[in-house]
Amino acid sequence: MRICDIGEFGLIDRIARSLPPPGEGVIVGIGDDVAVLRSSERHILATCDIQVEGVHFLRDKIRPYQLGRKAVAINVSDIAAMGGLPRYLLVSLVLPKETEVEFVDGLYEGMREECSRWGAAIVGGNMAHSPGGIVVDLFLLGEVEPGWLLQRSGAQVGDRVLVTGTLGDSAAGLALLLHPEASCLDIHREFALCRHLTPLPRLWEGRAVARSGLATAAIDVSDGLAGDIGHICERSGVGVRIWAGALPISNAARAVAEAVGADPLEWALSGGEDYELLFTTPAGRAEELARRVYEETGTPVSIIGEVVPADQGISLTRPDGSTLPLRKSGWDHFLK
Amino acid sequence: MRICDIGEFGLIDRIARSLPPPGEGVIVGIGDDVAVLRSSERHILATCDIQVEGVHFLRDKIRPYQLGRKAVAINVSDIAAMGGLPRYLLVSLVLPKETEVEFVDGLYEGMREECSRWGAAIVGGNMAHSPGGIVVDLFLLGEVEPGWLLQRSGAQVGDRVLVTGTLGDSAAGLALLLHPEASCLDIHREFALCRHLTPLPRLWEGRAVARSGLATAAIDVSDGLAGDIGHICERSGVGVRIWAGALPISNAARAVAEAVGADPLEWALSGGEDYELLFTTPAGRAEELARRVYEETGTPVSIIGEVVPADQGISLTRPDGSTLPLRKSGWDHFLK
Repeated sequence: MRICDIGEFGLIDRIARSLPPPGEGVIVGIGDDVAVLRSSERHILATCDIQVEGVHFLRDKIRPYQLGRKAVAINVSDIAAMGGLPRYLLVSLVLPKETEVEFVDGLYEGMREECSRWGAAIVGGNMAHSPGGIVVDLFLLGEVEPGWLLQRSGAQVGDRVLVTGTLGDSAAGLALLLHPEASCLDIHREFALCRHLTPLPRLWEGRAVARSGLATAAIDVSDGLAGDIGHICERSGVGVRIWAGALPISNAARAVAEAVGADPLEWALSGGEDYELLFTTPAGRAEELARRVYEETGTPVSIIGEVVPADQGISLTRPDGSTLPLRKSGWDHFLK
Repeated sequence: MRICDIGEFGLIDRIARSLPPPGEGVIVGIGDDVAVLRSSERHILATCDIQVEGVHFLRDKIRPYQLGRKAVAINVSDIAAMGGLPRYLLVSLVLPKETEVEFVDGLYEGMREECSRWGAAIVGGNMAHSPGGIVVDLFLLGEVEPGWLLQRSGAQVGDRVLVTGTLGDSAAGLALLLHPEASCLDIHREFALCRHLTPLPRLWEGRAVARSGLATAAIDVSDGLAGDIGHICERSGVGVRIWAGALPISNAARAVAEAVGADPLEWALSGGEDYELLFTTPAGRAEELARRVYEETGTPVSIIGEVVPADQGISLTRPDGSTLPLRKSGWDHFLK
């Protein structure tokens, strides 16, 4: 049996089942993007996320500076989804010997800038040479006040599903990288590329959601909305109905989709890499929570669906009232 | 300019100079194998170490179980060299899609066993697919009592240099993997292969050294004795004279060296991957410290040299009294 037969999440399940209970110091263990470790004052958050040349990025499509910013941002996004703050970064680099020093300089410039933006410090790491491409593996430590911790597991039937910002922009940016000849307004091109190459983690939005005490579950949109809401459903033992008409899709994503002949709804549902914050809250508090986050951060929040019983699965309701099931999984690293 | 022109340590220096001061929470930052972060009761230790297929291991020369054990052990060794205890492990895997699930099972069996041996728990990680070979990148969190922290920076002129166990065995094991036809006693073959494939981190020895309060500096021997003592010299602003006749070389390493026509002294000085603990202590306390570690752990400790002024550099004194300079650097990932 090969790992492409069972997929990334099948493999993670298999590993999780094989491990002994991790002990009482571990609040969230294997299977999540972030481990949560009990500490005396604030819980410790530990996460890692990797960028592999040829899989996550192409050398000629992203500048080293952008790669550095993005690699940090996607880890900060994981900390944001737990309601925490990033603190310390370790950088593990695998580099071909012929790599230009300027590449490393640019990479670190980007990592430094992104870290400083979010109050984190680069404190160490490791280097090894690569017989193949470049690998940038970052390990980020953060912290969260025990009462503020956001998890995937608390969504309740009847809750509303909320999301920050807009969905599908990163997929639009990727489409433009792969089809630079596509014709659209410069302002849309710029926006989509920026969202793909240097995504903005929703750290202050995560803090606002955590501080409110109103969220029942949260995650960041990295694999795609359909896949990431699936993680909440699995952990919370619920289903979700997404309202297609309520999905926040930017004019840029619509314009790029039209230019390349793609469906912006499809991008919003499964494009991935938007790094928006996705969370649930009781129906009666949804408007209030959306307003609070907007007032504190300036970031619009949309109410995009509702939590339903698990046996109803994950579905999409179209504006005409018709409903279709959504594939639960988003991006899977190993499935064929 | 390419990274092979300035080398791994030249690149790390360049990066370290480009970073802003990391803030008062960081006791040891970039440039060390382990970051030390101030915390309310115990300091947090954070380290990462990677195994890259074709660089650190060959698929047909190591079983997945052994690779799992080794990948954990070398990280535990870094924690041991700081006097700490390992607590939480994150596992970042980059795998070709065709990887057999049994490979991952074996890898995790090894990691699980090695973690459980040292009291650590696997709490999370990340997976990505690889367009090339396998990469196993581990992030290990540990802790240390503030008064017990061992650093590289405190060696004083006149101190003695001590090392646990024996040196050169891992190089002997590697030589046997590359020359399986070499003829030597089974017991020597077994020992050398075991030391290379499943090294034993000196965790309890590190705790004994830390508890004693007698060590002025410490590091683990990963790049090779000459290179690692060089890190102590650099951070402490001293030189070192190693006594060749005092180097602990096992009968196995001598036998394998003879079988493959190599020099066991060369292996002991620069073979690397022995994961012994190397530390310094005032001359008058060296015998006492060696005895204490032996009594507490059963591991022999050798006194192998003395700390000298920085301008004398790093040298080797032969049994006949002649002295020659040692190259400061051991293994460098990028130098040509």
